[in-house]
Amino acid sequence: MSVTDELVANAERYAASFTFGDLPLPPARGVAIVACMDARLNVYGLLGLREGDAHVIRNAGGVITADERRSLAISQRLLGTTEIILIHHTDCGMLTFTDDAFKESIRAEVGIKPDWSAEAFTDLDEDVAQSIARIKSDPFIPHRDSVRGFVYEVETGRLREVKA
Amino acid sequence: MSVTDELVANAERYAASFTFGDLPLPPARGVAIVACMDARLNVYGLLGLREGDAHVIRNAGGVITADERRSLAISQRLLGTTEIILIHHTDCGMLTFTDDAFKESIRAEVGIKPDWSAEAFTDLDEDVAQSIARIKSDPFIPHRDSVRGFVYEVETGRLREVKA
Repeated sequence: MSVTDELVANAERYAASFTFGDLPLPPARGVAIVACMDARLNVYGLLGLREGDAHVIRNAGGVITADERRSLAISQRLLGTTEIILIHHTDCGMLTFTDDAFKESIRAEVGIKPDWSAEAFTDLDEDVAQSIARIKSDPFIPHRDSVRGFVYEVETGRLREVKA
Repeated sequence: MSVTDELVANAERYAASFTFGDLPLPPARGVAIVACMDARLNVYGLLGLREGDAHVIRNAGGVITADERRSLAISQRLLGTTEIILIHHTDCGMLTFTDDAFKESIRAEVGIKPDWSAEAFTDLDEDVAQSIARIKSDPFIPHRDSVRGFVYEVETGRLREVKA
């Protein structure tokens, strides 16, 4: 039995006690969260979100690339969100390598160098500020007044705001 | 008080009862999930995940673009995951518009047409299969034997597998 099989079995239990069948498509709280994919960062638990509350966008690092700008434009323009919360975290994998070394290791193994930026970073607070700046400069995201960035401390469970 | 302020206050409560301070960086279950950002799709609750179990990657639609391929390469190559679960869902916002119309509406308002594909789709099962196919063809993602796709039914809470 694979891990996937086990998680699918868990989903049957979720459905058995499901009570959220009449929620609307637009997020009730009008907020979109962009967070790192890290396994220790439980966005719903941390922020006290319930089903239907917020859009949750996640990737390696919680960084802003074209795909996050696409998702935020859809979130705000079609589904009415107006606030954005960014969450990076301590002990992040993105702090453990460089783009150059990672992409060279792939080229050496596969024979092709990836055509994407790996988006590694060396300073957590600086990268949160960088992510805020990328959103603030994007003309396709209409609501940019409430864009706030945080560092989640995986050691303590605390959320610390980064002043951009 | 903004919604962001309220969610940050919730995070203080999370930290006050926090018990996950010694979890390692690599996901315990060795799995990465790619899901839609939809507010009704609580990935942790649905799959019975706990802090530390799995990478969670999310965007508008749960589609595979360059940024998801980047995140999956990092997840597998640097942090040891080997299984991938894709989750789209019923009543998805991505079924409600076309790329052409959405991008033209932005051009008409902003004066610039976005340089990204909006990734709208018309058939849920077909788009899950498309996402699986994009992963299967990516040379930078080493583990492509266990890539399974699902549709989450927001009306019932059930997860239905799409046979690719």
